[in-house]
Amino acid sequence: MKLSHWLPCLEWGRCYDRSSAAQDGLAALIVTLMLIPQSLAYAMLAGLPPVTGLYASILPLLAYAVFGSSRTLAVGPVAVVSLMTAAALAPLFPAGSEAYIGAAMLLALLSGLLLSSMAMLRLGFLANFLSHPVVSGFISASGILIAVGQLKHLLGISASGESLRQVIPQLWLGLPSAHWQTVLIGVFSLVWLWWARARLKPVLQRMGLSVQMAGNLAKAGPVMAIIAAITAVSLLQLEHAGVKVVGVIPQGLPGLMLPTLDIALAMQLLPAALLISLVGFVESVSVGQTLAAKRRQRIEPDNELLGLGTANLSAAFSGGFPVTGGFSRSVVNYDAGAQTPMAGVFTAAGIGLSVMLLTPLLHNLPQAVLAATIIVAVLSLVDLGSLSRTWRYSRPDGVAQLATIIGVLLIGVEAGILIGVGLSLLLFLWRTSQPHMAVVGQVPGSEHFRNIERFAVIESPNVLSLRVDESLYFPNARYLEDRIGELIANRPQVRHLVLMCSGVNLIDASALDSLEAVVERLKTANIQLHLSEVKGPVMDQLRRSSFLQHFGGQVFISQFEALKALAPQLTQQTLLPSNLRADTQPHA
Amino acid sequence: MKLSHWLPCLEWGRCYDRSSAAQDGLAALIVTLMLIPQSLAYAMLAGLPPVTGLYASILPLLAYAVFGSSRTLAVGPVAVVSLMTAAALAPLFPAGSEAYIGAAMLLALLSGLLLSSMAMLRLGFLANFLSHPVVSGFISASGILIAVGQLKHLLGISASGESLRQVIPQLWLGLPSAHWQTVLIGVFSLVWLWWARARLKPVLQRMGLSVQMAGNLAKAGPVMAIIAAITAVSLLQLEHAGVKVVGVIPQGLPGLMLPTLDIALAMQLLPAALLISLVGFVESVSVGQTLAAKRRQRIEPDNELLGLGTANLSAAFSGGFPVTGGFSRSVVNYDAGAQTPMAGVFTAAGIGLSVMLLTPLLHNLPQAVLAATIIVAVLSLVDLGSLSRTWRYSRPDGVAQLATIIGVLLIGVEAGILIGVGLSLLLFLWRTSQPHMAVVGQVPGSEHFRNIERFAVIESPNVLSLRVDESLYFPNARYLEDRIGELIANRPQVRHLVLMCSGVNLIDASALDSLEAVVERLKTANIQLHLSEVKGPVMDQLRRSSFLQHFGGQVFISQFEALKALAPQLTQQTLLPSNLRADTQPHA
Repeated sequence: MKLSHWLPCLEWGRCYDRSSAAQDGLAALIVTLMLIPQSLAYAMLAGLPPVTGLYASILPLLAYAVFGSSRTLAVGPVAVVSLMTAAALAPLFPAGSEAYIGAAMLLALLSGLLLSSMAMLRLGFLANFLSHPVVSGFISASGILIAVGQLKHLLGISASGESLRQVIPQLWLGLPSAHWQTVLIGVFSLVWLWWARARLKPVLQRMGLSVQMAGNLAKAGPVMAIIAAITAVSLLQLEHAGVKVVGVIPQGLPGLMLPTLDIALAMQLLPAALLISLVGFVESVSVGQTLAAKRRQRIEPDNELLGLGTANLSAAFSGGFPVTGGFSRSVVNYDAGAQTPMAGVFTAAGIGLSVMLLTPLLHNLPQAVLAATIIVAVLSLVDLGSLSRTWRYSRPDGVAQLATIIGVLLIGVEAGILIGVGLSLLLFLWRTSQPHMAVVGQVPGSEHFRNIERFAVIESPNVLSLRVDESLYFPNARYLEDRIGELIANRPQVRHLVLMCSGVNLIDASALDSLEAVVERLKTANIQLHLSEVKGPVMDQLRRSSFLQHFGGQVFISQFEALKALAPQLTQQTLLPSNLRADTQPHA
Repeated sequence: MKLSHWLPCLEWGRCYDRSSAAQDGLAALIVTLMLIPQSLAYAMLAGLPPVTGLYASILPLLAYAVFGSSRTLAVGPVAVVSLMTAAALAPLFPAGSEAYIGAAMLLALLSGLLLSSMAMLRLGFLANFLSHPVVSGFISASGILIAVGQLKHLLGISASGESLRQVIPQLWLGLPSAHWQTVLIGVFSLVWLWWARARLKPVLQRMGLSVQMAGNLAKAGPVMAIIAAITAVSLLQLEHAGVKVVGVIPQGLPGLMLPTLDIALAMQLLPAALLISLVGFVESVSVGQTLAAKRRQRIEPDNELLGLGTANLSAAFSGGFPVTGGFSRSVVNYDAGAQTPMAGVFTAAGIGLSVMLLTPLLHNLPQAVLAATIIVAVLSLVDLGSLSRTWRYSRPDGVAQLATIIGVLLIGVEAGILIGVGLSLLLFLWRTSQPHMAVVGQVPGSEHFRNIERFAVIESPNVLSLRVDESLYFPNARYLEDRIGELIANRPQVRHLVLMCSGVNLIDASALDSLEAVVERLKTANIQLHLSEVKGPVMDQLRRSSFLQHFGGQVFISQFEALKALAPQLTQQTLLPSNLRADTQPHA
C-alpha cells in the first residue's frame, strides 16, 4: 500500500502548471459566488446560524482536495444532507441553540469517522445497498419536502415539523397572517432565479457578451438577487417593517472548535450519522463518476470515502456541519473549466476572504431570498418521471421507490430511506425465494438447451433436464424440493434428472441439505440425479462436502454432454451439420 | 378453492376403518404415556403450573387433527418453544402468577393468529429465511441452555435468568447448598432415563417379549421413573424432608378461558410471538416432511400453518401456552404405527382422561424427575458436529451458525435467532455484491464456453466473452461497471464485449442504469456490447425498457452463436466432428 494510493493530490500535483491554475482560478471564482448564498441557505435549512454554512465551505474543501479522487467534485453543505441534519437534531435541541450547534458538529465528526473507517476497512460496498430507484425517490421526495419547508420563509410566517403532515396544516393556517413585503421579495427572487437559470445566458449573449462570458455571468444570478435584495432592504428599511433578515454574521475565520463530546449523544446520533454518510457518499460518488467519465478519468470509491471523511472531520472542528459533494456546484465547477482539486483550494480561499470581509454586508439579506435560492435548487432535483419508468420496468423496484417517496413525505427522511432500503432487500429475497425453473430441451441442430415452453426444442422422454435460474440458498431450498417433487410426479417415464446449473452461482449449506434430501427421494422413485454446467467456484465448494461421493450421479461439463451420455440416440440424430441448422427463433 | 383443501381430515376420514383405528389407538396409548411427563415438564420449563402442559395437550391435538396435513405429527408443548415462552414472559411477570398464565395464553393466541393469517396469505415462505444452519445451531444451543437451566431442579436450589452468563454463576454459588435427597432422585432418574432410552428394549426382548411389545414398553421408561419416584416420595415422606414436588394439580378438564386481552401487552409480545411461530413452524414442518417422505406422503405448508395456527388458538382458549409439532413424540407416534391424525384425537382423549382421573396421583412427583426428563430429551437435540460440517462446507453458513449458538448461549434465545437470521442475510448480500465473473473461451470441439483460467479453451482476440455469475441487481450494479472497465483497459484489441447471461436471473432497475452507463463508456472506447444466453424472464423484462432499442448490439441465443457471428473464422475451425473431440477435462 503506497502513500500515493491514499493521496491522489500527489499525482495531479506533480504536473500542476500555470495554465491549470488559471482555469482552476476562474472556476473557483464562479463557484465561490454560487456557494455564498447556497452555504447560508443550507445552514438555515439545517437549522443552524447562516455563518456555519460558510465555515463548512472552507476547511472541508481543503481536506477533499488532499484526499479526494475526483478532479472536479465541489464539496460543501448540500440540500439533502442539510435536511437530514435538521431531521436528526430538531427533536433533540431548539434550532440554532448552542447545544444544537455543538450536536451538528458532533454529527459531522461521527460522519467523518464513519466514512474514514469505511475507507480503511474497504466497506464502500455498503453504499451499494442504496439502490438507484431508492436514491432517486429519496432525492425527489427530499426536494419536495425541502421546498415546502421553505415556504414559511417566503410567507414570513413560522411553522415547524419534519414531514408534510406537520408542515402543510401550519402553512395553511398561517396563510392569512402572511407578511406581504416578505412575500413580495420572495416571489420576485423566485421568479428571477427561475428565469435566470435558463434565460439569462442567451440574453447576455444577445447583449454582445461571448458565450463563455455570458455563461459565467449567468451563474451569478443568485448573487445579483442577493445584492438587489440587500439594497432594497437597506434603502426601504424593510427590517423595521418586519422582513426577517440574516442579521449579524460574525466576521473572521472560524477558530478551532470542539464539537460536543458526549458519548450518550453520540450513540443517539450514530444511526443518523450512518444514513447521512451513506446518502452523502452515494450522491457524491454518482456526481463524481458522471463528471469523471466525461473526461475519461476514474474515481476510486476508497479515496472518495477518505476525501469525504476528512472533509467532515474538518467541518467538525471548524464549526461546520455534515458536508458532501454537491451536484449543481460540481457541474458548475466542471463547466467553468476546473482541471484539478486546486479549484477547491481556491474556492476555500474565496469563501475565507468573504467571511473576513463581506459578512457585515450580508446583515440585511432577507431570509426569503435564501429560501427562494433553496427552492429553485432543490426543485431541479425532483424527477417524478423516474417513478413511472421504474414502475414500468420492474414492479419491485417501483414499489421500493414509491414507498421511499411516501415514507419521506409522510413520515420523515430517515424513515423513508430505511423503508426503501428494507423493502428493496425484502423484495429481492422474496423474489429469489421462488426462483424461475425451466424444463429445457435441445435446440435442434445445436448443442444449446432452452426452455421447452418458449422454444421449439427436443426433449428426451427418459431424461428430464431442469434449469434452475437462481442460486440455491436458504430462502429457496425448500421450494426446490417441492418443485422437483411435482415435476417427477407428472413424468413417470423419467429415469434421469439432470440439474443444469448454469444459473446457479452458489449452493449454500441449506441447499446442500435439500439436494441430499432430493437425491434420497429420487432414489426411492428409481431416478438418478445428475448435475451439468456446474461453475468452478460452486464445484470447488461441493468438493468440500461428501455430496459428490455419495449422490451417485455424474457431473457433466455441459447439458449436451449429459444428454450424449444418458440419451445417446437422441443427440446424434439431432446434431445436424451447421449449414442445415433449423430455425432457432423463439415461438412468437 | 375447495373446502377439502383446508380440511385434509375429509380425505383420510372418508376411508377410515377399524384396522386404522386399532393402529391409531395403540400409537395413542404409547404417546399418551410419553406425553404426561413431557407435558408437565415443558410447562415447568415455560414457567407455568404443570397442569397447563396437560391442558395444552388436549384441544390443540384435536384442532391439528382437523386442519393439519401430516398424518403422523404429534402436536403439543415442546422444549424449544417452551423455552422461548419463558424467555418472552419472564422479564414481564413473576413466573407462575395469574398475569404470567394469562400472558402465556395471549402468546398462544397471537401465535395462532399469526400462523393462521400466514396460511390465508400464503406467507409460509417466510419460514424459509430460517436457514438450516441457523435452525440447527439454534436448536443445539437451546438444548444446552435448557439442560443447564434444569440443573437447579436436580440440585434442589433456586436460580433464575435467561442466559448461561446469568445461570452458571448462580448454580456454582448454590452448589454447596444442594439438597442431597433431591440430587439422589435426580441422578437416579437421569441414569435410568439415559439407560432406558437405548438399552431397555434389548433387555425386554431378552426377557422374551416380542420386538414390537418390547419397543412399546421401552417407551414407557419415563412413566416407570415417575411411578417409582412418586412411590419413593410417598413412602419415605420426602416432601417433608424438603424434596420439591409438583404439588396439587387441579382435577378435571380445562374450562373455556380467555387469555389476557391487553392491546399494549399484545404489541409487546408480538415480536416474540412471531419468532415462536416461525421456529415452531420450521421445526414442525421438518419433522412432518421427514416422516411423510418415509411413507411417500406429502405435507402442504399452508395446511401445516393452519393446523398449527388453530392448535395454538385452541391452546389460548383452554388455559394452555404455545405448542407445535414435537420431534420425539412424532417419531414415537410414527414408530408405534399411527396411520392418521385420529391417533392425535385418541391421544387427546387419553390426556383428558388423565386430567380427570390421575392428577391426584401426581401430587408427590418430584420436580427433579421432570427436570431429568427434560435434560434427556433436549440433549438428544444437541448436534455440535453439524457446526464443523457446516464450517468446512461454507464459511458464511458456519459463521451464521456459530453466531446463533453464541448468541443463544450468551445473550438469549430471541437475540440468538435474530443474530443468526440477520447475519445469514447480510453475508448472502455481501457475497452477491462482489459476484464471480469469468472470461470464457470455447471448449475445443464443442459449442460450450468455460472459464479461461480453469479450462484449456480458445479465445478470440477481438471478442471478449464475459460470464457474470450473479443476478445483476443493486448491490453489485456498480461492481459490474468497475470490473468491465478493468477488463477492457487490459485488452486494447477488443472490439466486441459479449456478456454471457446464463447466470443472470434478474436485471433490476439499478443494474439497467449501470448497463446503460457501460454501453456509453464502451462506445467511447469503440467497443460494442452484446448479450448472449439471456433467459426468457430477463428478456421479457428488458423488452419493457428502451435498452434493447438503443444499446446498439445484438442478443444472441447462445455464446456459440455470438462467436459465430462476431468471429466466424474462429468457430468454424474449432468445431471438429464429434468423434474427434479434444479432451475437455479441467486443468489439474
